[in-house]
Amino acid sequence: MAKQAYSRRDLSFQLHEVLHVEDLSRFPYFQDHDRGSIDLVLDTAGQFADQLLKPLLTELDRQEPQLVDGTIRLHPGVKNIVRRFGEDGWINALFSYEEGGQQLPATVYNAAVFAMQATNYSGSVPPFLTLGAANLLRSFAKPELMAAFTPHMYAGRWQGTMALTEPDAGSSLSDITTSAEPTEEGYYRMRGQKIYISSGDHDACDNVVHLMLARIKGAPSGAKGISLFVVPRQRVAGGLPAENTQPQDLVSNDVVTAGIYHKLGCKGAPIAHLMIGGSDDCQGYLVGEPNQGLRYMFQMMNEARLAVGVSAAAIGTAAYYAALEYARARPQGRHIAARDVTKPQVPIIQHADVKRMLLFQKATMEGALGLLMQCSYYMDVARVGTGAEKERAELLLDLLMPIAKSYPAEMGVLSTGAAIQVHGGAGYTTDFPVEQFWRESRIHPIHEGTTGIQGLDLLGRKITQHGGRAVGLLLEEIQAAVAAAEGVPELRELAAQLTKTVGILQQTTMHLLGVAEQNHELFLADATLYLELAGLVAVAWQWLRQATVAQNALPAAHPDDQNFYHGKLMAARYFYEYELVRAPSLAKRLQSPNAVTVDMQEAWF
Amino acid sequence: MAKQAYSRRDLSFQLHEVLHVEDLSRFPYFQDHDRGSIDLVLDTAGQFADQLLKPLLTELDRQEPQLVDGTIRLHPGVKNIVRRFGEDGWINALFSYEEGGQQLPATVYNAAVFAMQATNYSGSVPPFLTLGAANLLRSFAKPELMAAFTPHMYAGRWQGTMALTEPDAGSSLSDITTSAEPTEEGYYRMRGQKIYISSGDHDACDNVVHLMLARIKGAPSGAKGISLFVVPRQRVAGGLPAENTQPQDLVSNDVVTAGIYHKLGCKGAPIAHLMIGGSDDCQGYLVGEPNQGLRYMFQMMNEARLAVGVSAAAIGTAAYYAALEYARARPQGRHIAARDVTKPQVPIIQHADVKRMLLFQKATMEGALGLLMQCSYYMDVARVGTGAEKERAELLLDLLMPIAKSYPAEMGVLSTGAAIQVHGGAGYTTDFPVEQFWRESRIHPIHEGTTGIQGLDLLGRKITQHGGRAVGLLLEEIQAAVAAAEGVPELRELAAQLTKTVGILQQTTMHLLGVAEQNHELFLADATLYLELAGLVAVAWQWLRQATVAQNALPAAHPDDQNFYHGKLMAARYFYEYELVRAPSLAKRLQSPNAVTVDMQEAWF
Repeated sequence: MAKQAYSRRDLSFQLHEVLHVEDLSRFPYFQDHDRGSIDLVLDTAGQFADQLLKPLLTELDRQEPQLVDGTIRLHPGVKNIVRRFGEDGWINALFSYEEGGQQLPATVYNAAVFAMQATNYSGSVPPFLTLGAANLLRSFAKPELMAAFTPHMYAGRWQGTMALTEPDAGSSLSDITTSAEPTEEGYYRMRGQKIYISSGDHDACDNVVHLMLARIKGAPSGAKGISLFVVPRQRVAGGLPAENTQPQDLVSNDVVTAGIYHKLGCKGAPIAHLMIGGSDDCQGYLVGEPNQGLRYMFQMMNEARLAVGVSAAAIGTAAYYAALEYARARPQGRHIAARDVTKPQVPIIQHADVKRMLLFQKATMEGALGLLMQCSYYMDVARVGTGAEKERAELLLDLLMPIAKSYPAEMGVLSTGAAIQVHGGAGYTTDFPVEQFWRESRIHPIHEGTTGIQGLDLLGRKITQHGGRAVGLLLEEIQAAVAAAEGVPELRELAAQLTKTVGILQQTTMHLLGVAEQNHELFLADATLYLELAGLVAVAWQWLRQATVAQNALPAAHPDDQNFYHGKLMAARYFYEYELVRAPSLAKRLQSPNAVTVDMQEAWF
Repeated sequence: MAKQAYSRRDLSFQLHEVLHVEDLSRFPYFQDHDRGSIDLVLDTAGQFADQLLKPLLTELDRQEPQLVDGTIRLHPGVKNIVRRFGEDGWINALFSYEEGGQQLPATVYNAAVFAMQATNYSGSVPPFLTLGAANLLRSFAKPELMAAFTPHMYAGRWQGTMALTEPDAGSSLSDITTSAEPTEEGYYRMRGQKIYISSGDHDACDNVVHLMLARIKGAPSGAKGISLFVVPRQRVAGGLPAENTQPQDLVSNDVVTAGIYHKLGCKGAPIAHLMIGGSDDCQGYLVGEPNQGLRYMFQMMNEARLAVGVSAAAIGTAAYYAALEYARARPQGRHIAARDVTKPQVPIIQHADVKRMLLFQKATMEGALGLLMQCSYYMDVARVGTGAEKERAELLLDLLMPIAKSYPAEMGVLSTGAAIQVHGGAGYTTDFPVEQFWRESRIHPIHEGTTGIQGLDLLGRKITQHGGRAVGLLLEEIQAAVAAAEGVPELRELAAQLTKTVGILQQTTMHLLGVAEQNHELFLADATLYLELAGLVAVAWQWLRQATVAQNALPAAHPDDQNFYHGKLMAARYFYEYELVRAPSLAKRLQSPNAVTVDMQEAWF
């Protein structure tokens, strides 16, 4: 196992030096969070990660969950993680003091999550799902419903899930068929099946609370007829559970675990196939209004998608540090310009091609982290800000979200792959952690909306939404970063390259919007490539911000910090030289008149 | 498991319609191989794959080899594969009739291998290693040494290996320290250790024959002092084994299996850690002349690297057919221009983004296969041809080899990844074969020389070797393909794009050769990117050849074949539109004056 999984120094850099996250304390909701308290949160997260998550990184991968007598059995260490996560206040940390929370900015929280997930992603999945489910309840459920479930969830005793996917409804959620029949007792009688439900059942908790999409009998077809329900795995007799409900008070609610999926990675986090109401005895409670389920779910989508981005960047970062450690320790070969076989071999980190692979990882993952922290910051302002400031943050967040989800996800797979390559043959064995990171990374382009879905969201919806105002705001942000960089002589070249590439992106966007008027299918056919192009620009923007801070801080910095800032500047240069340079080729394809993928016929494959 | 792993139709297309492989019968060595006998070989390979390899695809992955009482225990089904492979004449098929072989062209053989490896890569690894080791023996060993070992190997009873890597000598083979001390009995006393030895020990054979690199005591340091030995795991008392040596005649030769590596994929093929001569009782026999070991090994390198390319393309092809099958069967969503939720969902193959992912796989893997068959053809001509024709084939083969190894390897990882993505969440589970293909694909950019090593080989050696003559020959070949395509109106655009991109590659090459005169480290720093650029051009050349054949055949073709040819033409267009279009960006980076990776310092990471 590698010694280091992430850089605490980089978290400080991103939060304090680039984003000045402590300035969020100007909002009353965040007023208690100064630099000292923020650093304490990050340090505490690091301790949690080291003590509880790190020891189980390999074990959770090797000892897969098993379905035994109808219940999924996890590695016994997971129970400790889940409980302590609740007890230490990590599940409700974002929420208000009245709810027992800490009113923590999402920016700080996501940095803490990043540290934990870099240390052991699959061990950290169950409690974060509880957070997502609890947040849905507190946002849309009636107070009595919220009071019945959230205290158990906050405490880490009851697991929360998002139960969306069905055998015939994955990317196409409008095809959900799980049904809900109203009863005179106030609950709904649920019936259906759900697949791929993360933490849908396991023995590290006392109960599972499913936030489930279903269709009330007689509801309209399609997305307009989907409602949100809370469906516990176990219920109490005669009504809702109470805060003092004990495990022995619970009885079956006819949610049966029909199977467990065995997976490529993330093996510590179980995925269940659930049969709901097979004995016609499953009780669910409506959350909010009927037929608003998809809308509610999508209102939480930004949080969920940002969380995927954070996870992906975290795993990629852990792989980078493992590769870095290996490259420093492994002697192999000699300098290309002085190959004297009588001299000792040099550590492979001295070879340019190995430095290239390491810089690729550093540039993509620290760039991704920058974008994720930026989006988290917008999320905080959108949440507690007012007026134009709030609206601006909301628009930017919505626009950037498909990128913040998919850039870390897609590049995370390539970045962990580069970490394997740095290891050579050793990286292909289970003696080193990078093959596990590679396997774990592969889920992120899939779940919470595949990369293809994100591309459609960006090009088909976000770009033109609100009369294109969000795009205008992003251009302002980028121009501000360019203007700051132009004041630094060393960065003028990067600033000019970004300005030029933004022009290419704008031209491509105009071209595609022209296509949209003629042929909607063709317009969206390469949306995934458009997303990739936009991702390059967004991360280049972040790197210009990071480089500007680093270059300005360099002269007066302590020698250790000078190394850190030099690393930032080189990674920024790498990103522009090796990654952003790909933009014109993408734009060329996106503006090509050849509709290859639309023209292709099924019979020709 | 997917029904289809490769396209028999495509093998016919590549061999007969594009390469006209039956024309090799003009050489006396190949005179017996007409179209009928070639097709019989391919069909027989398909039967072997279906009957012996296919049933074990999943099982070999799930039941990993284990080291028990000093011997690696394999799935019992492997023994049958290994034996039948020998008995059916697959190990010595390339060799002469006098050696019991079939004098088969490598082009035909590699197509047969492709079919087997697409069906079950890791199950096919052990016998192919035996072939490589046997070929080394027959090429360089004295007749009595060859006679002692190769009959057992050809019969599939004794496993062959290539024992190169040591703990401190992976990419840097010149640092090998395994020692060989001459004795008066004629053998050498071997001592050392070898790691990552594929099929280095297992119970599906009666003995293992290691072709081992070692250093004779007193030999010069570095590459000049490395010799090649044959070192059996078990020997017979008092000399060399004979053709009628039986398992009960064998005694230990002090080659001890110290460990087995557990791996990301290719789990059916065991990898051993071997201790040689720990009890000072390991006998080895010199192959050929002293200190020529690396030269011998490198003379077989083209075969070994081509074999990796074939394996990588085979796995990628199997993943493509699995994805295609899934995409045809899985209904999800509706046409983007007609989203009526009251209508049934459509198979995902009808979505442009899914067709894009499938075309990516088809274009990269069928393009790779074209290049591999082309190189196999050069290998055949180099082997049996004479004079200028032979020399031309040798030069082209040597030049293309780093590309033919690394293009399928690198794109195979991305292509199998795209196959997962087509499956969505299902692709991340072990219920579908694509996650296994993805894991198996990841070894190919590593073994037989990493992609980085291939880049150094291409740019640092092959481009300038023989006064750059090989490059000139390749340009002639490409120009011939362009000229043929220019005669077909539908392909003029592709021909023009290839001509233009070849110009970009040439300009980049000239630029880099200029850098070489100033700074050798900088010259080679981005050799991996140069390899990628050259790979795009080489595969685009192959696609132009395939497209020309397809377009010319289209008008008179049977309707089924029309679909096939349309598919070829669309895949060619896809390759130029989405892949070759990346060339200018790569060239831009390669010609940039910013030496980011050379300038980067270890302390800055």
